[in-house]
Amino acid sequence: MTTDFSIKLPPIAKRGDTLAQVSTPALLIELDAFEHNIACMADMARQHGVALRPHAKAHKSSVIAQKQIAAGAIGICCQKLSEAYPFVAAGISDIYISNEFVGPAKVAMAIELARHVKLSLCVDHIAQIEALGLAADAAGVVITVLVEVDIGQARCGVARMEGLATLVDGIVRHPALRFGGLQAFHGGIQHLTTWDLRRTSAAASADKVATYAQFLAARGIACPLITGGGTGTAEFDVASGVFTEIQPGSYIFMDAHYGANEWAGNKMPRHSLFIAATIMSTAKNDIAVCDVGLKGVAIDSGMPLVKQDDELKFIRANDEHGVLKIIDNPDAIARDRLGEQVLLIPGHCDPTANLYDQYVCIRNDRVEDIWDIDARGLSQ
Amino acid sequence: MTTDFSIKLPPIAKRGDTLAQVSTPALLIELDAFEHNIACMADMARQHGVALRPHAKAHKSSVIAQKQIAAGAIGICCQKLSEAYPFVAAGISDIYISNEFVGPAKVAMAIELARHVKLSLCVDHIAQIEALGLAADAAGVVITVLVEVDIGQARCGVARMEGLATLVDGIVRHPALRFGGLQAFHGGIQHLTTWDLRRTSAAASADKVATYAQFLAARGIACPLITGGGTGTAEFDVASGVFTEIQPGSYIFMDAHYGANEWAGNKMPRHSLFIAATIMSTAKNDIAVCDVGLKGVAIDSGMPLVKQDDELKFIRANDEHGVLKIIDNPDAIARDRLGEQVLLIPGHCDPTANLYDQYVCIRNDRVEDIWDIDARGLSQ
Repeated sequence: MTTDFSIKLPPIAKRGDTLAQVSTPALLIELDAFEHNIACMADMARQHGVALRPHAKAHKSSVIAQKQIAAGAIGICCQKLSEAYPFVAAGISDIYISNEFVGPAKVAMAIELARHVKLSLCVDHIAQIEALGLAADAAGVVITVLVEVDIGQARCGVARMEGLATLVDGIVRHPALRFGGLQAFHGGIQHLTTWDLRRTSAAASADKVATYAQFLAARGIACPLITGGGTGTAEFDVASGVFTEIQPGSYIFMDAHYGANEWAGNKMPRHSLFIAATIMSTAKNDIAVCDVGLKGVAIDSGMPLVKQDDELKFIRANDEHGVLKIIDNPDAIARDRLGEQVLLIPGHCDPTANLYDQYVCIRNDRVEDIWDIDARGLSQ
Repeated sequence: MTTDFSIKLPPIAKRGDTLAQVSTPALLIELDAFEHNIACMADMARQHGVALRPHAKAHKSSVIAQKQIAAGAIGICCQKLSEAYPFVAAGISDIYISNEFVGPAKVAMAIELARHVKLSLCVDHIAQIEALGLAADAAGVVITVLVEVDIGQARCGVARMEGLATLVDGIVRHPALRFGGLQAFHGGIQHLTTWDLRRTSAAASADKVATYAQFLAARGIACPLITGGGTGTAEFDVASGVFTEIQPGSYIFMDAHYGANEWAGNKMPRHSLFIAATIMSTAKNDIAVCDVGLKGVAIDSGMPLVKQDDELKFIRANDEHGVLKIIDNPDAIARDRLGEQVLLIPGHCDPTANLYDQYVCIRNDRVEDIWDIDARGLSQ
């Protein structure tokens, strides 16, 4: 024992390590699948002449945002103002905050962001517009403001034409604000399991957005941008003739929840996000206990799946324990799995990525790179 | 717009701010309740002559660990080896890792920790003992090792006397290892709702631990330490005559899940952990939408409760949205709550604290201090 309290955590992995050497829990990106997903979504948007603005809330990493932009994305969405800061610092120059915010601290953040990048914001209340307009005017910045319309999610967004008109008029009235168009997202239809149900629901949503845009057009107000959609409806949104921009996030990772959807043709993104876990207790015959629990995987959309191991099923997460049931098979039970590595496919990628500080990037079972999750925890 | 990408996030709060000024989402500690909880548990352990070793997995903050030790705790528990590092760096000198681990990277961490502090570890497999013994011997350190016994949780820990004997013999055989005693935790009984059911279950668990200790005593092996228990059973564990040390974690915060328990007399810890949220969309009549979702509160043990507001019920969490139902009351619905601050009591404190980087400490509705959550995310 020394009296020197300087102690430094070892890195979770080093470039060139084998996958088996990666210390667990670790959040892995399998680069081949990841790059495939990035390219496919960019190609699909390009083919339909629709802009792609991926949602950075899914990955919270400026390295990934840069790769998405290199593949053709015009910028990114963030869901919170503070979340945008590391992307600005990394040089991303076009950011849209696709979510409402309120209060002087948040307005000050918005103004600060607008001083650095091409910023657009989203509102659904006249008070948000008034506060923002005054602050933008005082700061001498011009900010593009979109109005969120409710297309079925029944959460945020105006649901009536007169409400929309009030907000658009409020934006137009402020010299420092520009009306950018409509924000329209229906999260509830992204995970409808059958392809056909998603197709018809996406069409109904697009029709609703179109009605809002037509209402504004009849009042002589152009809608430069209609933005929305997610991973589950992107293929329909790009072909809708209504959306001019899509905002998918999860497509780069493809979590287990989205994997449970039925996908047409080759449209299903590939699973690229995994959690490396290690079995650290085998004291019971019918379970193996791994080192990934609630602090290593989000379970709001179901338990993680075990990759390429039919003998194990993840059945329970405690704080730092994951309980894997050994499927009833005499050979499976006989083997002592202590120390074995298991790869988990998280049920929901967004809150899972928010638990980690780094992605360990794997190609051909080797660590190729390590990327910071630089917007982790930035929820303000 | 400038070409200067240097941009710096504002602090979430400053000392002296009013609670209303704290930017949200923010994780709050109400200091009066928190200090009450720390003092009560320390007093209870002291009165029964039982050591208190609080579980740092609940708070992950070296400032809080220091306060627990100042109140009489003899050291802390961590649940992961990496989690212990910031506590070592902060000068905590007695750390017990109350959970199994496996593999060379983890053994190397254990040896590094043992060079700095009085370390004790927990095993339930002979292979863990062999690897640790060899490494400790090579490094010239002596490590205390406890054996986890299963007292009903059916997760980790040996469940048979011969298994216990094998492990204790394995520890005793290694010159660099010392047999420290028994780890015995039954998480499942911590949240039994009625006081009487917890009392009888805790008694049954203590009886099981005693059987293991008696088995060892009959073989001439003393058990210096019997450690375990949690917030829900602490009052019974200290009086059991079996446990020599207790490991409660949540008692400092008292989450909604523990709050649903029935408590006797004045034994119920006070709620001291809250999430400050802001209502940022009121576009629907029957709900208010706040800025705390899955990335701001863990929902594995139920939705958060709304503090001191009978008109709102938290019913759904999306990534960055929390949906609050407005209870059916014409006056409640009529008021536009945009911008109002709401305090949430998280369902489960441990994974909620793990989402934040700082605690904003409040007394008399003012920010008194800000504490780093320096072990956040350290799950290796």
